Amino acid sequence: MEKVREIVREGRRVGKEDPRRVVHAFKVGLALALVSSFYYYQPLYDNFGVNAMWAVMTVVVVFEFSVGATLGKGINRAVATLVAGGLGIGAHHLASLSGTTVEPILLAIFVFVQAALSTFVRFFPRVKARYDYGVLIFILTFALISVSGFREDEILDLAHKRLSTVIMGGVSCVLISIFVCPVWAGQDLHSLLASNFDTLAHFLQEFGDEYFEATEDGDIKEVEKRRRNLERYKSVLNSKSNEEALANFAKWEPRHGQFRFRHPWKQYLAVGALLRQCAYRIDALNSNINSDMQIPMDIKKKLEEPLRRMGSESGKSMKEVSISLKKMTKPSSFDIHVVNSQSACKTLSTLLKSGILNDVEPLQMISLMTTVSLLIDIVNLTEKISESVHELASAAKFKNKTKPSKSDSGSIVRAMPNKSHDDDDDDDHHVVTILGDVDTSNNVDQSHGEISVDSCHHVAIKIDDDDSIHEKHEDGDHIHVHTSRVSCEHTNASDLLDSGVKKN
Amino acid sequence: MEKVREIVREGRRVGKEDPRRVVHAFKVGLALALVSSFYYYQPLYDNFGVNAMWAVMTVVVVFEFSVGATLGKGINRAVATLVAGGLGIGAHHLASLSGTTVEPILLAIFVFVQAALSTFVRFFPRVKARYDYGVLIFILTFALISVSGFREDEILDLAHKRLSTVIMGGVSCVLISIFVCPVWAGQDLHSLLASNFDTLAHFLQEFGDEYFEATEDGDIKEVEKRRRNLERYKSVLNSKSNEEALANFAKWEPRHGQFRFRHPWKQYLAVGALLRQCAYRIDALNSNINSDMQIPMDIKKKLEEPLRRMGSESGKSMKEVSISLKKMTKPSSFDIHVVNSQSACKTLSTLLKSGILNDVEPLQMISLMTTVSLLIDIVNLTEKISESVHELASAAKFKNKTKPSKSDSGSIVRAMPNKSHDDDDDDDHHVVTILGDVDTSNNVDQSHGEISVDSCHHVAIKIDDDDSIHEKHEDGDHIHVHTSRVSCEHTNASDLLDSGVKKN
Repeated sequence: MEKVREIVREGRRVGKEDPRRVVHAFKVGLALALVSSFYYYQPLYDNFGVNAMWAVMTVVVVFEFSVGATLGKGINRAVATLVAGGLGIGAHHLASLSGTTVEPILLAIFVFVQAALSTFVRFFPRVKARYDYGVLIFILTFALISVSGFREDEILDLAHKRLSTVIMGGVSCVLISIFVCPVWAGQDLHSLLASNFDTLAHFLQEFGDEYFEATEDGDIKEVEKRRRNLERYKSVLNSKSNEEALANFAKWEPRHGQFRFRHPWKQYLAVGALLRQCAYRIDALNSNINSDMQIPMDIKKKLEEPLRRMGSESGKSMKEVSISLKKMTKPSSFDIHVVNSQSACKTLSTLLKSGILNDVEPLQMISLMTTVSLLIDIVNLTEKISESVHELASAAKFKNKTKPSKSDSGSIVRAMPNKSHDDDDDDDHHVVTILGDVDTSNNVDQSHGEISVDSCHHVAIKIDDDDSIHEKHEDGDHIHVHTSRVSCEHTNASDLLDSGVKKN
Repeated sequence: MEKVREIVREGRRVGKEDPRRVVHAFKVGLALALVSSFYYYQPLYDNFGVNAMWAVMTVVVVFEFSVGATLGKGINRAVATLVAGGLGIGAHHLASLSGTTVEPILLAIFVFVQAALSTFVRFFPRVKARYDYGVLIFILTFALISVSGFREDEILDLAHKRLSTVIMGGVSCVLISIFVCPVWAGQDLHSLLASNFDTLAHFLQEFGDEYFEATEDGDIKEVEKRRRNLERYKSVLNSKSNEEALANFAKWEPRHGQFRFRHPWKQYLAVGALLRQCAYRIDALNSNINSDMQIPMDIKKKLEEPLRRMGSESGKSMKEVSISLKKMTKPSSFDIHVVNSQSACKTLSTLLKSGILNDVEPLQMISLMTTVSLLIDIVNLTEKISESVHELASAAKFKNKTKPSKSDSGSIVRAMPNKSHDDDDDDDHHVVTILGDVDTSNNVDQSHGEISVDSCHHVAIKIDDDDSIHEKHEDGDHIHVHTSRVSCEHTNASDLLDSGVKKN
């Protein structure tokens, strides 16, 4: 009894987590009841006989949660049945020519070779990712048809019936999955990315308060809720396999909503990988927040202004991406926040150079510098993410924002006053200078070679390069170039100050 | 033609990566040829008729790469066929009682309810992990049997034949997968863990040379080979899903080699999670190594001795674990290396307190302190890993090492002189003090509450606690207690020095 209650509770939890699961269960029930009543229905049964069961089987095996997965499996199954059926008939014909004693031996050899080859092919990474199921069905159908032991005309009839029932089952699945409350893997991937941006943004925006404000031991429930909310980012850490599966399914899906057939799903994975990099840093930062309570607040406060701003500005830029992803518009004020966070980074470096921390104990220094270095990493990653999102936006042909809607302009308005409030004058000039760089610097390699030793960005950027090359080899070069083009590390902070003054 | 050559090249690569794949392909071919010759063999065919195809189907679908996966699927399929067959016959009987007009409607309702419920159950995480395939077959068989449209005695016959052919197919798979070059998932998991320890150990042991020795731009190929060898650790970063799948399969496997039926596979996952934590740190460290070339060598050299020792000693402890895992013996000199690395950590903290870095530029400080903090993290993680490995060793009943074999004693001998060579006198006393702590401290919570602010370990340990709670909730508490019990952070470094002097 206790056991039953537990199962019911578990069921409620699973259903609440994603109500579409309940709908999916009903859809499968519907499809199966439909197909088996075909089976039961006498005229159809007279026509297809036992072969009607292949329709039932197809529905059970092919019907998956998302449209993409269902379509992928259905197409795999239909094509594999067709090809293997043809080859199977051929093999059967060949064997039957050879006389009754050799025939079974020849058939066994055919089956053996076919099964061994196909099984081996299933280990190919590219086959495994998209055609694994098809190869499985290929092995199955080939073996069943070639060895069936029927006369040839019977076999042709068999293959024909089997193919038509498989197609019947497959089509029912696909139709029901597309037209009854469809679950699009592409849409899911898109939303997942947007919500990942959102949770990271939330953490970064709250970071300053969490790090610089003494925690009162007030309402424990409140504190716990706050922490749980902050630590939502942890789901991003392990999102890789989920994203990859969704992207694989999405490739099978037809045009739906605002997604074209050849939507750049691969670019979603690229952005997702960078975002995960960022989440690793945030995870480390989060553990530091707790332990850094040990550092006296007055020491932390010395770096409060730039650190707070680095967090909040990169958070804002991510929030902006999250919103514009949801609306599928190009992010507009996004770059401003990225540049703001970089200028905060420069303020920090000036501050550190001024020797403000000379009297800090070395052991406290370790912890404080870890936080600083993580935040620098995050700022630099934000910039890379910015570039990657721009690529995504243009590849996916996101609309330009014509008239900012309410919630959107809210975010810009919130950003703007902050900017003019937080930034001092030469930070504004940094903005100008850096944006200038983007347009004019053609000497990418050269500038990369001239990186000055004491730029605080450089260290972090190197870290990122390595990491992202590890995470996504293909785009490594591109990112590399980009990094040295846009970010501020190829001139040191004092140079920027100079140029700011000159423009004045 | 180019395409074909490419495919052949890919095939060669896939086969070379794990030659057992080729063997597996042959095994599948063998099983299928065997079962389909049953099918083709007239007396058997006369007995089972078309139902013989269920044997073929079972082989194709059930035969997996490892014994555990095959057994799991086979058992799932047999049990699900049996249960669903019984229920299906019951449903069919019930429906047939109700008269010809109601019968199809009732059957459709049965199928619908059954399919919807079972499909929903497949979303339960525990069901998904181990019984997903069984539920699928349950849905399938129930639908096929209940709707079959035959008379009842025919159905009983059908169910019986289907079950026996499924069992025939399943048993062939299981026998071939166990007796022809078996691939044990448990053995694979075990080896994977050992090799993960090995790659991390390699990195840590090489860390000192990599960080403190200026790279000559000599033989590029040599340098690249060295880097590739160092960066083997990257495979550990994404080992989670692989480990989990293997552990799931291993649970199905019978006693084999030195593994009992209820071998503590779960503990492998716990150790693996900690090891992955360590790999994340190493990844960050690796990126730092490259960027830290910017820090003048003379500054780095100031911290060389303790940093080098922290790396090499934790590397040695991991190497030791790797070796003893391979032999399935309890690691013996393992703890000594852990303690050595901790004492190096203390030397470092003393060094930092002495103000040796007071004249270092703040921006170089960031990078240097990041390296320091990562190494402290790694040392603390090594200690946790040590505890976790000890748990594994006793749960898995590893043998005590009676007579160290050659390669093993090599590792101990290498360790010992290092110890007496590197450690100064009061470090040796640290060892005594810390080991004493393990035995005597019952005041866990109290000591945890008293952590002093200036202990360098504390910060890092906090980080780990949080992370490991995130990675493995169940053991979180345990680790927490452990950490505050064994490690040296609940007394600060000067306390330890005092106690060392007292014992003198």
